[in-house]
Amino acid sequence: MSRTLITGGTVVTAADEMAVDVLVEDERVVALGVGQNWTADTVLDATGRYVLPGGVDGHTHMEMPFGGTVAADTFETGTRAAAWGGTTTIVDFAIQPRGGALREGLDAWLAKAEGNCAIDYGFHMIMSDVNPSSLKEMEVLVGEGVTSFKLFMAYPGVLYSDDGQVLRAMQRGAQTGGLILMHAENGIAIDVLIEQALARGETDPRYHGIVRHELLEAEATHRAIKLAQVAGAPVYIVHLSAASALAEVAKARDEGLNAFAETCPQYLFLSVDDLGRPGFEGSKYVCSTPLRPVEHQAALWRGLRTDDLSVVSTDHCPFCFKGQKEMGIGDFSKIPNGLPGVEHRMDLLHQGVVEGHISRRRWVEIACATPARMFGLYPRKGTIAPGSDADIVIYDPTATQVLSTQTHHMAVDYSCYEGKQITGRVEAVLSRGRVIVDGGEYRGAKGDGRFQRRDTCGYLR
Amino acid sequence: MSRTLITGGTVVTAADEMAVDVLVEDERVVALGVGQNWTADTVLDATGRYVLPGGVDGHTHMEMPFGGTVAADTFETGTRAAAWGGTTTIVDFAIQPRGGALREGLDAWLAKAEGNCAIDYGFHMIMSDVNPSSLKEMEVLVGEGVTSFKLFMAYPGVLYSDDGQVLRAMQRGAQTGGLILMHAENGIAIDVLIEQALARGETDPRYHGIVRHELLEAEATHRAIKLAQVAGAPVYIVHLSAASALAEVAKARDEGLNAFAETCPQYLFLSVDDLGRPGFEGSKYVCSTPLRPVEHQAALWRGLRTDDLSVVSTDHCPFCFKGQKEMGIGDFSKIPNGLPGVEHRMDLLHQGVVEGHISRRRWVEIACATPARMFGLYPRKGTIAPGSDADIVIYDPTATQVLSTQTHHMAVDYSCYEGKQITGRVEAVLSRGRVIVDGGEYRGAKGDGRFQRRDTCGYLR
Amino acid sequence: MSRTLITGGTVVTAADEMAVDVLVEDERVVALGVGQNWTADTVLDATGRYVLPGGVDGHTHMEMPFGGTVAADTFETGTRAAAWGGTTTIVDFAIQPRGGALREGLDAWLAKAEGNCAIDYGFHMIMSDVNPSSLKEMEVLVGEGVTSFKLFMAYPGVLYSDDGQVLRAMQRGAQTGGLILMHAENGIAIDVLIEQALARGETDPRYHGIVRHELLEAEATHRAIKLAQVAGAPVYIVHLSAASALAEVAKARDEGLNAFAETCPQYLFLSVDDLGRPGFEGSKYVCSTPLRPVEHQAALWRGLRTDDLSVVSTDHCPFCFKGQKEMGIGDFSKIPNGLPGVEHRMDLLHQGVVEGHISRRRWVEIACATPARMFGLYPRKGTIAPGSDADIVIYDPTATQVLSTQTHHMAVDYSCYEGKQITGRVEAVLSRGRVIVDGGEYRGAKGDGRFQRRDTCGYLR
Amino acid sequence: MSRTLITGGTVVTAADEMAVDVLVEDERVVALGVGQNWTADTVLDATGRYVLPGGVDGHTHMEMPFGGTVAADTFETGTRAAAWGGTTTIVDFAIQPRGGALREGLDAWLAKAEGNCAIDYGFHMIMSDVNPSSLKEMEVLVGEGVTSFKLFMAYPGVLYSDDGQVLRAMQRGAQTGGLILMHAENGIAIDVLIEQALARGETDPRYHGIVRHELLEAEATHRAIKLAQVAGAPVYIVHLSAASALAEVAKARDEGLNAFAETCPQYLFLSVDDLGRPGFEGSKYVCSTPLRPVEHQAALWRGLRTDDLSVVSTDHCPFCFKGQKEMGIGDFSKIPNGLPGVEHRMDLLHQGVVEGHISRRRWVEIACATPARMFGLYPRKGTIAPGSDADIVIYDPTATQVLSTQTHHMAVDYSCYEGKQITGRVEAVLSRGRVIVDGGEYRGAKGDGRFQRRDTCGYLR
Repeated sequence: MSRTLITGGTVVTAADEMAVDVLVEDERVVALGVGQNWTADTVLDATGRYVLPGGVDGHTHMEMPFGGTVAADTFETGTRAAAWGGTTTIVDFAIQPRGGALREGLDAWLAKAEGNCAIDYGFHMIMSDVNPSSLKEMEVLVGEGVTSFKLFMAYPGVLYSDDGQVLRAMQRGAQTGGLILMHAENGIAIDVLIEQALARGETDPRYHGIVRHELLEAEATHRAIKLAQVAGAPVYIVHLSAASALAEVAKARDEGLNAFAETCPQYLFLSVDDLGRPGFEGSKYVCSTPLRPVEHQAALWRGLRTDDLSVVSTDHCPFCFKGQKEMGIGDFSKIPNGLPGVEHRMDLLHQGVVEGHISRRRWVEIACATPARMFGLYPRKGTIAPGSDADIVIYDPTATQVLSTQTHHMAVDYSCYEGKQITGRVEAVLSRGRVIVDGGEYRGAKGDGRFQRRDTCGYLR
Repeated sequence: MSRTLITGGTVVTAADEMAVDVLVEDERVVALGVGQNWTADTVLDATGRYVLPGGVDGHTHMEMPFGGTVAADTFETGTRAAAWGGTTTIVDFAIQPRGGALREGLDAWLAKAEGNCAIDYGFHMIMSDVNPSSLKEMEVLVGEGVTSFKLFMAYPGVLYSDDGQVLRAMQRGAQTGGLILMHAENGIAIDVLIEQALARGETDPRYHGIVRHELLEAEATHRAIKLAQVAGAPVYIVHLSAASALAEVAKARDEGLNAFAETCPQYLFLSVDDLGRPGFEGSKYVCSTPLRPVEHQAALWRGLRTDDLSVVSTDHCPFCFKGQKEMGIGDFSKIPNGLPGVEHRMDLLHQGVVEGHISRRRWVEIACATPARMFGLYPRKGTIAPGSDADIVIYDPTATQVLSTQTHHMAVDYSCYEGKQITGRVEAVLSRGRVIVDGGEYRGAKGDGRFQRRDTCGYLR
Repeated sequence: MSRTLITGGTVVTAADEMAVDVLVEDERVVALGVGQNWTADTVLDATGRYVLPGGVDGHTHMEMPFGGTVAADTFETGTRAAAWGGTTTIVDFAIQPRGGALREGLDAWLAKAEGNCAIDYGFHMIMSDVNPSSLKEMEVLVGEGVTSFKLFMAYPGVLYSDDGQVLRAMQRGAQTGGLILMHAENGIAIDVLIEQALARGETDPRYHGIVRHELLEAEATHRAIKLAQVAGAPVYIVHLSAASALAEVAKARDEGLNAFAETCPQYLFLSVDDLGRPGFEGSKYVCSTPLRPVEHQAALWRGLRTDDLSVVSTDHCPFCFKGQKEMGIGDFSKIPNGLPGVEHRMDLLHQGVVEGHISRRRWVEIACATPARMFGLYPRKGTIAPGSDADIVIYDPTATQVLSTQTHHMAVDYSCYEGKQITGRVEAVLSRGRVIVDGGEYRGAKGDGRFQRRDTCGYLR
Repeated sequence: MSRTLITGGTVVTAADEMAVDVLVEDERVVALGVGQNWTADTVLDATGRYVLPGGVDGHTHMEMPFGGTVAADTFETGTRAAAWGGTTTIVDFAIQPRGGALREGLDAWLAKAEGNCAIDYGFHMIMSDVNPSSLKEMEVLVGEGVTSFKLFMAYPGVLYSDDGQVLRAMQRGAQTGGLILMHAENGIAIDVLIEQALARGETDPRYHGIVRHELLEAEATHRAIKLAQVAGAPVYIVHLSAASALAEVAKARDEGLNAFAETCPQYLFLSVDDLGRPGFEGSKYVCSTPLRPVEHQAALWRGLRTDDLSVVSTDHCPFCFKGQKEMGIGDFSKIPNGLPGVEHRMDLLHQGVVEGHISRRRWVEIACATPARMFGLYPRKGTIAPGSDADIVIYDPTATQVLSTQTHHMAVDYSCYEGKQITGRVEAVLSRGRVIVDGGEYRGAKGDGRFQRRDTCGYLR
């Protein structure tokens, strides 16, 4: 048995800020204490540092096929970059092949990840073909720890489910405990606007933000909530970016419905001004839902404070500018949708703390505790408590850093935040008790990460 | 030239209640006056009576094919019944055949009506196949006085348009001045619930009201409004029955959007209690949107007072109990959707005046003036003013009557209001200056009614 | 008997736009007609002109004492200016003296007006001392045609009523049919902010707009509505200027409450930018409620379209810059509150038509018909119909004019709209059948106007 | 040093449910752990039990003078009863005498409590006389750990502050960190309704609920929030009972304002049906805000789930039926306002857990953690964490009990819940490490409790 003691720091969880020592035995936290003269094999001095639960990123797409190409980060590179950034668990998305079984998709993704991950990982299941057979499979997957299912109201002909399929999947979710995650954009209407824009010669990246109209996100969000209400099921809206969509979630939550939503750092820090950058630069900022006008940022921060937004995930889905984003030169609809981000979430949200948008505890809540609880990983992940996995970040709140392609660890040739200065930096990362990042050094290995069977959502009220 | 003078009555319009004489020459009102000693060929004494603009029923389905049968009232019988009830104009629905042109549907319906109607009539166009060709035709029809187009978010595979078709039609409506009328129910989701209910053996008429879930009307209403907002177009929600759908319209109107809605007398006076009548009696009350729990009635009356509901139409679409409604014994989804009502609208709404729900002027507004203005017939129809068509009802506000199959003039073998006592009764009806109903006698003839070319909607703000 | 015929114009009422002739006998309209060859002593050719009901200004303060001075327009000068601007009826405010009877105040104001007015006039009663005796008097005044009572939630120690007095007056209003008009600002809180601002040396006119905080108007508006709801009474909010106050009215109206509000032209066309003009110029724009930031204007126009604002009155209460406004040099709280405006209301609102904010009919509705109905003068005033008073404006919609102290007829030494160009101009004005303004000439006389006994509010639902 | 180990139980905090051991040294928790073989002087076996932070009741009135009598529980009897019920900290209310200083009131209350309390206690300060001097004192009191100030919008002439005083106190609160607690009822309007009711002979207790109209609670709640917004200050609404008042808080919180509210067990479990009990029984249920119709209960439970209600306190203020409540025979307004409840809060809220209204963690949050944080006692009180005071309750979630005057420990001659069966019961209570309740035995002593200096509110966002 190995014993590690983290001493002198301020443990910050969603609930508490405590000057306590943390005792780790092997893979787990076993005690928190004050004034106890615990001994350990390894003692980490966290004086002047925060001691945080490792980040839980509930939304990543490693090596995901999209529009004829594949996201640039593999499970190996992407999870290692996550670790560098203080994230110790991801929940990625396995994809059911159209015409195939959930099992088929899950097995494929398990195989991709197996032996390659730097940190622990779980899977949501994307249902791209809701039918009696896949509906039946949901129960099996829940039993195996894949307890959430993503549907798309966007991307007709590819990932899209119609409202009948959505309703059936939600009903089945309610029966099995499976949580429905929703990409809420009215893709049928958006495709009309895309066709019309292209016909008018509007092909630049910025039109991506125009055709994916804010109201069509708000509409789909409302519809998803109403269908969930009819099904008697909870619903979780992914990557919410529009203030008007947030208003729909807030209204539902006021009514006591189990409606949840996440946003992403890109919506808090970037805007249509980035999408409209000159030349083809804007393509670097193409993701769906799209970036919105800058005034939406304040609404999203407020939503994080009021808990109408419960989680910040990254929707990490990087495509290189060269060769990948460039596929859409002359036709914005051909630009692969997605941004790199898994490495910077903890830091960018800490910047939100520094700038006064959220408190320290709220930072940990939206980045660690709530995603863990939402996706059935809590209290194993998401907190620092006796019995929890020793996924711990020692964080220096006063260090500064500059984000850049030169320094990031993601396998992508640009940064959305090139040159942005951040206050705060990860100093060390423990994954299940082992130090994998230590100052400037990576000490972990490919395959450290283990598949996590997840419980059902811990948030229903 | 024939001159008719209506004297001694209280002229009630949407704006005014006036003790004035009405002078008619040939087909038109030519003057209103007090203390003028006008002479006339015919003098109608309206002492103690209301003198009203003839009713405008903006939503009827004469001899409409539905589910393998045809609505029981022909243009002949249905318009005559309308006249008996004080309605002097209807706007019926021509239906585009799937795979065919708007023109084809319109010509068919013009032919059905031609020479058969007791009162004036116009047509809305049901678009059951939105495609580049039918979108193009919209402009032609607007030019010919068919200035409104109905879409269905319900009835997949039959009349249903998807959100892309809806958006395109709305955009085209905005360009041409054509007003989009929307049947707002999420038919895709409803069809799932129908299938599930039948699979559970829930076959009685009352399940019709359960599967057509209130929230699926509210959802579709919200969606229609958002799509209209994206298209920059107005939208008119037909036969709204749910309080939650009304809330969506109210919210849109508070925001200053051109969103309009009608309800129908059946939603103001009937409820799921009727749909749940013992045996197969409930089938008589099967219509879509369905009747709602009784507490919705108060919300709808309030909506009429606050002008969040602008119009009361009948959605008259009668099917006999024998042989027609009975098609759905053992399967509520086979019951033809529709109720008889064209004859009773003016009386039932006057009952709303008697019971204190609305004022006299508001009665005339929702039943005559607003539908006329909404559908481009005002001021020719819907008011009593110099220059207007002399479509006039002399109404006895104190007479009583009992509604019954025994006495009604609609060609259907039951009444939704059998035995209901009403205060108020039509005494005489003039259609373009000619008395067609006079006390208990019908003096008009088949073919009196003329097709009305309509202007575009007069209500946009 | 004198007969006047107005021919060739477009009669615009709240409900209709009609190419009809208007026949006047003596003081009343007696007939409207088309194609009738009526003869008359006087024929007015209105070709290319609008024929409007005379304007009804429901909120003026002629020769009102305020803060140690008196409003600059007398009943003689003010009503004549009103006539020049197309307003043919005002409802002014009689003021109960503190410690005295309603009767005392009413008699004083009747005496001031008697024999001096150019146009017809009525009175609201300001209750500055709600007590058992004045509550009792309300019934008598209603019987005498003074059917509305204004209370102040502002101006503690002067006109202020506390919430108990407000509640009692509303209860009494509900019993007697008297409508409560409310100056809705939290004067108790505002006085704290005034004291604090002055103590900080913030003495310029622009601080008037800051201390009279928008939220304190919204708060009082909400409170007035709730107290009215407890009392079972309607309420009418005067001179609403804040978007957030409008939101409270809109919410109440959605709930079906009898809550009404007026705004004024100054809130539609002026803003805090005027209040902040250099030097002491801002004092010319000091009124209460104060002018708001410019973005409120759009909200108010929208409220006029959605009928959450029902009326536009002027709150005409002019003080000369010299000698009157100047009383507040060095202390904004000493600036007499009030603006000149009675002459320009019809024109400024027509400018709203020209700029696309409202329709022609809505213009007549908010400026003529609704104030008349609200204050019990309809259909005598506010419309053109057989039986109505022949208060008629012939309006040239294409003429242009420039507003200026040089040309206006109000007895005040500045114009809030100096140099503003307007499209549209009054051409002729008839007051009870007599032409009092004819092109550039004033043909009426002091004392033409008669006191109008008013019925109770015609708008309750 | 004494060491106590609590082992085998489920520690439930606001954030976590953990099967961990709790190690206490002297007065504090020093460690939580799993699998550590800690030794201790005393080992408490909590197998099958919950281990909870001691309850924090943020609203009590021990021996409070009211309407000519004094609340029946002294600090001695009341705090002992609290301990029996699992509450280990109260925050009571010191009262400034009208015309006197805050200091004077605080000293008087400190003297009453000193040496008498069974558990720890703090004080809020009631400001019954807001003036320059008392405003100045606020800073001193905050420095001494009295960091919250209660104002009354009710009880004119006794405790009432007008809106100017409220605004000033809020401004001063914002400067000093003092949190304003608000009794939000429009007392000025209520006094009118009381006078009118009594004049009509409506003297029974049930009229207490009618005159204290729901809308007058909602109105005052809205007003308090708006005044706080103007002052830039947070506000905490005490004893919220009306669904419409809750809606105002929810709206403010959606807007991101620092508006907080508590409700009380009586509003969750009792209703106007109790107030209307026959004879004078209803007087036992007279408190302000009053009990509401039973349907409000569901809204309040929902508010607790959505966090629009943050805290449940008792407003414990007991008056005996004999001799005290009886003072109001023949005049409900003379009934002392207040109910006994300090003993039953933890149990009644656990009943809410049993009945599915809230989760276990939420129970601890609203009853322990949030009141502690809100009133500046966290993490000393309100949680179980290394460093916290060892205020711990061992709770048997399956035991049953029947509430009754026969068995309760409050010094009052009736129970509001006589005969009500509850699932769950306190088994043992530790106050700062000492066992003061152990099964059926009380082991503490008068004077155990210590005055708690409080930090400022820990909840601002």
